[in-house]
Amino acid sequence: MDATRIGVGGAGTMGRGIAQGMSAMCDPAAEIGLPLTDVDTPALVIDLDAFERNLAEMAKRVSAAGVRIRPHAKTHKCAVIARQQMALGAVGVCCQKVSEAEALVRAGVPDVLVSNQVVGRRKIDRLVALAREARMGVCVDDAGNAVALGEAASAAGITLDVLVEIDVGAGRCGVAPGDEALALARGVASIDGLRFAGLQAYHGRAQHIRDYAERERAIESAASMTRATVAALARTGIECETVAGAGTGTWQFEAASGIYNELQAGSYVFMDVDYAKNLDAAGGPFADFEHSLFVYSTVMSRPARERAVLDAGLKAFATDCGMPRMADLESVVVLNASDEHAVVDLTASNANLGVGDKVRLIPGHCDPTVNLHDWYVCVRDNRVEALWPIVARGCVW
Amino acid sequence: MDATRIGVGGAGTMGRGIAQGMSAMCDPAAEIGLPLTDVDTPALVIDLDAFERNLAEMAKRVSAAGVRIRPHAKTHKCAVIARQQMALGAVGVCCQKVSEAEALVRAGVPDVLVSNQVVGRRKIDRLVALAREARMGVCVDDAGNAVALGEAASAAGITLDVLVEIDVGAGRCGVAPGDEALALARGVASIDGLRFAGLQAYHGRAQHIRDYAERERAIESAASMTRATVAALARTGIECETVAGAGTGTWQFEAASGIYNELQAGSYVFMDVDYAKNLDAAGGPFADFEHSLFVYSTVMSRPARERAVLDAGLKAFATDCGMPRMADLESVVVLNASDEHAVVDLTASNANLGVGDKVRLIPGHCDPTVNLHDWYVCVRDNRVEALWPIVARGCVW
Repeated sequence: MDATRIGVGGAGTMGRGIAQGMSAMCDPAAEIGLPLTDVDTPALVIDLDAFERNLAEMAKRVSAAGVRIRPHAKTHKCAVIARQQMALGAVGVCCQKVSEAEALVRAGVPDVLVSNQVVGRRKIDRLVALAREARMGVCVDDAGNAVALGEAASAAGITLDVLVEIDVGAGRCGVAPGDEALALARGVASIDGLRFAGLQAYHGRAQHIRDYAERERAIESAASMTRATVAALARTGIECETVAGAGTGTWQFEAASGIYNELQAGSYVFMDVDYAKNLDAAGGPFADFEHSLFVYSTVMSRPARERAVLDAGLKAFATDCGMPRMADLESVVVLNASDEHAVVDLTASNANLGVGDKVRLIPGHCDPTVNLHDWYVCVRDNRVEALWPIVARGCVW
Repeated sequence: MDATRIGVGGAGTMGRGIAQGMSAMCDPAAEIGLPLTDVDTPALVIDLDAFERNLAEMAKRVSAAGVRIRPHAKTHKCAVIARQQMALGAVGVCCQKVSEAEALVRAGVPDVLVSNQVVGRRKIDRLVALAREARMGVCVDDAGNAVALGEAASAAGITLDVLVEIDVGAGRCGVAPGDEALALARGVASIDGLRFAGLQAYHGRAQHIRDYAERERAIESAASMTRATVAALARTGIECETVAGAGTGTWQFEAASGIYNELQAGSYVFMDVDYAKNLDAAGGPFADFEHSLFVYSTVMSRPARERAVLDAGLKAFATDCGMPRMADLESVVVLNASDEHAVVDLTASNANLGVGDKVRLIPGHCDPTVNLHDWYVCVRDNRVEALWPIVARGCVW
């Protein structure tokens, strides 16, 4: 591993790359200064111009809406990007796992909310230890778990910020809004070592509702439940400093709700095929943010006129939201993927793809795609400008 | 990273963990000697007894059939397992990528076939460099690619073993059997730096045909095309030293074909939900090999009577072949997975899963699941006996 290859923020993280809770990585398939076409494949490529426009656009719009943003770092898993987001006004970042938080904090991110439950002695001890190095928050939806968090925090002499998670339609974690939330919030507020900081009210299912009005109604419903819970808490003298939620599909609705004050969108930095299927208010394609993330891939076989085979498969992009799309050759369709191959159909295309040609694929789903790679190869004007380590890649616990 | 935590074969590989082409890793979620229930989650767990029975069963049966086995290391990506397979008689291993081969060779594996095309100057140079450290083979299906391989090998003063890949029904890479294969084999045989070593004739599509007789017929067809190509080559004086192919779904048919002499099955070491759906000759479940690989996971939320949420999602197991299955609670169904969560349905179960309880999931597809993890937590009699590094995790180029 050659430290001189590492771009912004990289050099500082690498020495700690094998520390507990931080992933280290394969070597990048590129060097700074290379033309894009010389980058080896598969590689995870960021178009820096598009990426920077996405960051600036979100910063401008949340500022105009008068709400905070704490972007979700589960999307990018990269301390360089987290610091760029904070430089543009984000109050910190979210992540989903203690090990992710460890990787980010140790790479210089000072404020992390684990927007998820942290269960089990080992994880709780790690979370509490991390709270000595950075401002840490966590979500709870279970009274026993809150007690365990409080015991560990008290024993360590620290205080954890706790959001009570309510289920506003996602059907995953979270207590019911209203009385259940009230009971748990009172419990949290009474436990030494914990500080009740507000509500986590993320509506995951709403993010990919294609129709704009239907998506808006889902968040109106979530906001209504959240508003009622905040009011009920206020009547018992418990203030919600933070009301958190929102994703890239719905953030504008939470921002306008008057009740959410901290947004957690993540995918907006990259976009993906799935989010691009959402529709805007006029029924047109969702265009607030641009595709800035690509899996760069080589044609490794051209066995038939209508078929080419790429060198990227299930280990280079996620397929849970469908196949990737070709960025620059719209008539070429990715038919299927196996572990290390993707078969593309050239039937409807005049593209003369030969063995050795390289193409850009837009991932179907950005988060689990990023988690397959160790480096971002950051490109501007077709040259590699930086290599950013994905320090929380593989941090699943 | 604490080197004393590392089990068989680990200590030797870790020092080189950040060398070019070798992945390094997150810390393991366990220590040797821990009871399984104290292993943090999500973790990738091997049941060593079942795993060892799988290795021994395959070794015994290929030996009885009088064929060689070169197991596919794309499944396990682990030098410890590769060496165990070779100790039981395997002639070497396969992998799909040069970077995988680099990781394995540098961890002590002496003989690797890249059962795939290697395209592009950078990859070819790395392959050729590796051939100074180990016996290396590669597949080709393109004359221009063969020339490029020969030029690099000649310049380096080494000789690469080359298999010509033929398409025997997989519809992916490979030239047509017969005349096309003959022309390419002649070309390879004439190129300095290359040695024509035989045919690669893997029928990927046949592996998961559920019906036994239909699966057998698919391989009879592949074997027939392969046999004809071998005969045509022999008539022109070109001998096929190696005729390679087969996977866990079909290996017994290739072994009995009289034409294949080197089998490339990989998944048999672990099995998965998808392979377990194959049927045996009597129409019963395929039971030659046992499930030995599990994603260990914790119940992190129990928000409703019929619903529990696990702490493992798309970043801990692959879903391209469907959801994982609960190993020990058959009536509990994994409904869906998001990035870091799986929702399970308890409607049909009496299981009293509470927050903090741990469960074993059988992955839908073992290969891309393994690629999400850095360590195998190897368990016998419910205790952690070893931690094996997945040295080729993330090696996609």
